[in-house]
Amino acid sequence: MRGAVMYAPGDVRVEERQDPRIVEPTDAVIRLSATCVCGSDLWPWRGIDPLQEPSPMGHEYVGIVEEVGDQVRNVRPGQFVVGSFFASDNTCEICRAGYQSSCVHRVLMGPLGAQAERLRVPLADGTLVATPEVPPDDLIPSFLAASDVLGTGWFGAVAAEAGPGKTVAVVGDGAVGLLAVLAAKQLGAERIIAMSRHEARQRLAVEYGATDIVAERGAEGVARIKELTGGLGAHSVVEAVGTQESMMQAIHATRPGGHVGYVGVAHGVELPGEELFYSHVHLHGGPAPVRRFLPELLDLIWNRRIDPGKVFDLALPLDQAADGYRAMDERRATKVLLRV
Amino acid sequence: MRGAVMYAPGDVRVEERQDPRIVEPTDAVIRLSATCVCGSDLWPWRGIDPLQEPSPMGHEYVGIVEEVGDQVRNVRPGQFVVGSFFASDNTCEICRAGYQSSCVHRVLMGPLGAQAERLRVPLADGTLVATPEVPPDDLIPSFLAASDVLGTGWFGAVAAEAGPGKTVAVVGDGAVGLLAVLAAKQLGAERIIAMSRHEARQRLAVEYGATDIVAERGAEGVARIKELTGGLGAHSVVEAVGTQESMMQAIHATRPGGHVGYVGVAHGVELPGEELFYSHVHLHGGPAPVRRFLPELLDLIWNRRIDPGKVFDLALPLDQAADGYRAMDERRATKVLLRV
Repeated sequence: MRGAVMYAPGDVRVEERQDPRIVEPTDAVIRLSATCVCGSDLWPWRGIDPLQEPSPMGHEYVGIVEEVGDQVRNVRPGQFVVGSFFASDNTCEICRAGYQSSCVHRVLMGPLGAQAERLRVPLADGTLVATPEVPPDDLIPSFLAASDVLGTGWFGAVAAEAGPGKTVAVVGDGAVGLLAVLAAKQLGAERIIAMSRHEARQRLAVEYGATDIVAERGAEGVARIKELTGGLGAHSVVEAVGTQESMMQAIHATRPGGHVGYVGVAHGVELPGEELFYSHVHLHGGPAPVRRFLPELLDLIWNRRIDPGKVFDLALPLDQAADGYRAMDERRATKVLLRV
Repeated sequence: MRGAVMYAPGDVRVEERQDPRIVEPTDAVIRLSATCVCGSDLWPWRGIDPLQEPSPMGHEYVGIVEEVGDQVRNVRPGQFVVGSFFASDNTCEICRAGYQSSCVHRVLMGPLGAQAERLRVPLADGTLVATPEVPPDDLIPSFLAASDVLGTGWFGAVAAEAGPGKTVAVVGDGAVGLLAVLAAKQLGAERIIAMSRHEARQRLAVEYGATDIVAERGAEGVARIKELTGGLGAHSVVEAVGTQESMMQAIHATRPGGHVGYVGVAHGVELPGEELFYSHVHLHGGPAPVRRFLPELLDLIWNRRIDPGKVFDLALPLDQAADGYRAMDERRATKVLLRV
């Protein structure tokens, strides 16, 4: 089969890879309908995360089940399924508490390489969720978004306790931040402040439910949020970047007793304990347990209640994966879908 | 009146201070029944927190209302009242959300000097809570504990979401840690692990409801907690120390999706963002909004359902305040009550 392999920073090749097969009786093999490039794929592309050897890439996937192991009960060949970046048993105590991305048996999907024609999915029963029928093509991008960026933005909004009566601010206007706006809206937030200085993204944020746009960053951005909230700060702030500046911006923009939901993968962040102590905020986040939300998200997409697929502003054939990396690296695209 | 004043590290003198009087129409003046020395009073005593000038000391107080300003409605002369270390209006949006220690009009009580015969309490209506009648003397230590250490331990347990079915671990065996054990028990926790290597404190922890004692610290302490919780970590961990080591011990002892409630005043703490991200814990804490809990705590004490006053293991007359500081500094006492 064809699949994307990264050889070195800036060097992604789509080449012949061995077809995946059932290894464990709990595995499934799926034929991908679409996959995509993640912001986190850019770290090795940019040389920030070290690369030990040529590595299959990709961890976002939707597709048709081709084959299942003997112990798989919940999905069957022919079904259209969505999974996420951690395979999970969905039965351990941690999964049952809703933290499938910390499942005691979790398997990181990245090394299996979802930017490919086929993918082995471990722990299929606990990982994959099927749609009622094979969906029409126009819904594929939205289901693919559910695999990571929608689930992650949704977790950010849930971790920030977005809900009725709440003012929610979102730091970060990438795909995850934009979908955190969508999530806050779905969760019933009263007011949603998107922090963005990028016109096209501001427009999509408004379409997804943002009531206010704040273009300022850092201390100025915090001051604007305070102005908009009677001097108190937002009830809920979603952090969807992962830098020191964005984390402190999120904490400072939250009122005492409010909630910060952080889903930007932390890079070089050090939180000052004393400042955090006196901020009185709640802090929660981490790798999104997307599996917790998949049944609800798939239902919303199936019934066309949400359209998260709009975050894909460039679609390329799998064979042009490298162009997709380049477009995201150069910020010409927010999120690149790869047609398989 | 007599009152304690710190002149320099290690130099606390009880001397004549001006009698407090009503300044604002929302003030009350109380005659103290008892006061005490706080762990945080030791920072200037030890020269860790700088001292600009001779400073009245103390922020924990119970007593009889002597006089109230024209606008005070909720308390009246002759009532026995308990307040906490921040005066609060208890009506602003932050107070109504339960964060009175971040009240938009809060007044820090420390500089007013509660280690004295009398005390001015600003925002009396929002700050003071009266008991049904003047209590018998044997209940005074417990009501005094409610003013800070009980309210703080209780907030730690609430922030850590201690409750039925939960395993709660408490890092720190000072008065706050011990009372967090009591709080976890009252909140219905199934299992309570006190981390202590001090025999007398271990005994009081068990009396307050601890089901397990872990004497190990740091990585060994975390390993013991994991052993006791099927490898997962505790659901809830209260951090009642405030150092880098204790914060990391608390975070590492908490299972993914679990809650850390931190009430040890952070000194020199820096939280590594990446580690926090992958820990999947909830983090909440800060200066305890004791006022939120006072009505419930006073009721429990009045009805002799809890006995938090046992944390006072030394009682001295106010005039010997300096001996009290010395006893706590040298760890000869957990918590020193000063009789007024």
